[in-house]
Formats: sequence, C-alpha cells, structure tokens
Amino acid sequence: MNGPPPAVILVRPQLGVNIGAVARAMMNFGLTDLRLVRPRDGWPNPDAGPAASGAGAILDAARVYDDVASACAGLHLVFATAMLMRPLTRRVVTPERAVAELRALGLSQGMGGGILFGPERTGLETADLAVAHAVCSIPTNPAFGSLNLAQAVVVCAYEWMRQQETMPADELVNYSGPAPMEKLEALIVDLDERLGANRYYSNGPGRREAAMLTLRNLLTRPQFTEGEVRTLRGVVRILNVPRGAAGDNNQD
Amino acid sequence: MNGPPPAVILVRPQLGVNIGAVARAMMNFGLTDLRLVRPRDGWPNPDAGPAASGAGAILDAARVYDDVASACAGLHLVFATAMLMRPLTRRVVTPERAVAELRALGLSQGMGGGILFGPERTGLETADLAVAHAVCSIPTNPAFGSLNLAQAVVVCAYEWMRQQETMPADELVNYSGPAPMEKLEALIVDLDERLGANRYYSNGPGRREAAMLTLRNLLTRPQFTEGEVRTLRGVVRILNVPRGAAGDNNQD
Repeated sequence: MNGPPPAVILVRPQLGVNIGAVARAMMNFGLTDLRLVRPRDGWPNPDAGPAASGAGAILDAARVYDDVASACAGLHLVFATAMLMRPLTRRVVTPERAVAELRALGLSQGMGGGILFGPERTGLETADLAVAHAVCSIPTNPAFGSLNLAQAVVVCAYEWMRQQETMPADELVNYSGPAPMEKLEALIVDLDERLGANRYYSNGPGRREAAMLTLRNLLTRPQFTEGEVRTLRGVVRILNVPRGAAGDNNQD
Repeated sequence: MNGPPPAVILVRPQLGVNIGAVARAMMNFGLTDLRLVRPRDGWPNPDAGPAASGAGAILDAARVYDDVASACAGLHLVFATAMLMRPLTRRVVTPERAVAELRALGLSQGMGGGILFGPERTGLETADLAVAHAVCSIPTNPAFGSLNLAQAVVVCAYEWMRQQETMPADELVNYSGPAPMEKLEALIVDLDERLGANRYYSNGPGRREAAMLTLRNLLTRPQFTEGEVRTLRGVVRILNVPRGAAGDNNQD
C-alpha cells in the first residue's frame, strides 16, 4: 500500500523529444501523472510521441497549465529540481530524501506530491522555486552538472521505484543449491589422489595439507551445484594423464 | 579515498546519439572510462559528439574492442545489465548492491570494475552475460521495462555518485537561523492583543488559550528568521484595522 506516485511537472519545456523521453522514463519507473506548464511549442507536440517509445498513454493523459501554482493543484508536497539556489530560504535535499518524504506522506496520510523540472536551457526561475516547499538537488560532477531534462526525471523516477522495490537486493538465479557435501568431498579426495600420484606435492612437511587447504577453499566457497561438481569430476578425469604414461613430456 | 569509478562497457551499441548521451551521463556523475565493443556504425561516430553536449573528452578517450572479454581486461569485477535471465547461474543484484560491491572493492583493494550494457534493441546475449560475474537488474515497471540505453547508464552512474556523495541529505540554504526567542514572542503577544481587541476570541472558557496555542504552534515550527519575524509584524500592523474604525464593514 503506497500513496500516489509523484506528479512530474515540466515547467516551460522546450523540446518535444525531451517530453517524450520523460514520458518513457516515467512509465519505466511507475509514474503516471505528467503536467506541463506552458510548453514552448504548444501541446500536443508531434515530436513527443516517437520519443516516448510506447509510453504514449502518459502523453495522452498529460495536462497543460498556465503557471506553476495551478499545476501544483491537488498536490500536498512539491520539490523543485534546481542546480543553483537563488536567495530563497529553502531546504535543499537529495533525491533520495525528497522521494522518501513523498513516500512517507503517501504512506501516512495518503497524500500525493510532485517534482518540478525547469526548461532545458535555463532551469527554474526564482518565481518557480518559490512555489515549491523545498529544493531537490541531484548530486553531480561539480565541473559538469547540467543534466539532460529526461535524465533528471530518470533519477527521481528511479528513486521512487528503488524505494518501493520488493525485489531482493541479491539473489542467485537458476541455481539448484549446493551439492550434497559427500559429492564435493569425493571430488576433493579424487583430486588429492591424482595430484599425489603425479607428484604435485613437494616433500616438505605439511605441504600436502597446505595445498589441499587451498584447493578445498577454492572449491567450497562457490557452493557448486551437484551438476557442476559432476562436471568438474569429469574434467579432472579427462585431464588426468598418469606420470610416465604416453604423452607425458614433463621435464622435472 | 575511493577506488576508480566503474568502466561503462557498451556492447554492440547501435546509435551514435545514444553513445553521446551515455558520455554526457557518465561525465555528469563522475565516470570516465567508456569502452565500446563492436559499435554497429564504426567508431568514431559523427552523431555521438553533439549528443554528448560537452562531454566529448569521454568520447575521445573511449576505446574499441572486438569482444566482451577483451573489453573487460584490467577490471576485477564485472556486472551485466540485463532484463531477462538466460539459463546461466548468476547472482542477480540491484544497481544499489552492484555499485556498493564495486565501491567496496575499490575501497578495500583499490581494484576497479565495470558494467556491461547491451545493444538497444536486443540487450545482451547469453555469451555476453557469461563473461560477467553477476547480473545487475534495474528495477522497472514489469509492464514497461525496456529502458533507453543512456537512461540505464544514468541509473548506474547516479548510484555511483549517490553512494559517494558528501552533500548533506537535508540542508536549509540561505537561512540565517531562527530569530531570538523574544522577537518571536513579541510577534505572538502583539497578535494576541490585536485579535483580542477585534473580538477574534469567542467567549467560552479556554477559547483564547486554545486559539493562541494554535497560533503559537504554526508560528514557532517554521523557525522563522529575525527578518521574517520583522516582516510578519509589519504585515500584522498593516492589516490591522481596529473594529469600528473607518472601513470596518464586518457584519457580525
């Protein structure tokens, strides 16, 4: 049970291809509510659809507004993405924190919020920022901080998805589980015998034990499946040619 | 002190504009090492530069390889971004986890890693995935999971930046600190007197105390600065017209 996903509010966007790319990114990450404030080339824009690559439903449902305040109607918490702070007193938060606050508001009160994104070339103006409760600052390379509009939306939309995600952080896929211990042990014993027969171990005291510890370590840690252990036994058998047998040209 | 940022390895990329957009996103988030495996239209590609929007240095330094294994030379830990798992046994991790592992390897051993991204239309093939230690799966809308190539890179590059960032998660900017308590108190007292004089408070017992608690609450929580408190006192003074004065047309 989550609150509504945040609205994406594009303020005076310039390029239809960017609006389309924004719609695609929104749909990729589960956002649906696209709001446009005075798009430069009007609306609808024929360049947006192809760039949306199948996310046309989001473009079709987009609403157009005359100003930022109108576009925020119905929302309860609004962040403005910005690179520079104008002389307004505002909290500046990371995307992670902004999304966590939007998510918490949805969970606790069922209320939705939104995020403002400025025009491609200039970003948001002070008057736009003043409407928002706080500023969301995407961390970037200080020497090269200007993000593409759609890529700024990707970061925020990905954060939304990341913070709701239920997929495990780390999962082994197509894995039938570790082999029965006795099968792994049989591989290790077989290897030990064949290596001993081929004089792999030097004669010093404890050398065999040390070498076998290394081999046991590297063969045990991967949690090989029964099938993989069987494959390794086959490989060992095929590779193994007894010392002194035909083809043994080892010189030592 | 961090390890080297992960290499971005584009496997058989199709469109120059996407390679350029990848370079821009890399530079935005502090990555530098771009590797290309058999780019479809050869290399260099005239479409890449304009799309890189100033990140041409990354394109200039990009290296081209014949196969995935060669492109991974010099790296110690490689993740493959993929939507579907082929029948390989691999860990599948979130971008967050993948980047945390790359970062940990850099911090503890000084070793660098990389992330593979497949061609636009088809994604990575099984043989490509087989080279990687693990799969990095970007969480997306199950009904609309196909990410633009550059946007997939944005997610991973942003994770890298996010996990190193030193900026505070939440900071109040252009804020001179809360006003001295006595200035806030003077505002509250002034307001109380003016409201009382204008019969704002109903006559029931405790009504004045309840109303003042509400006002004190909403005026205290924002931690207004001394200048803001001064502004509010001015606003109260300008608004306030004593009951019965000229222009008072309140009917109650």
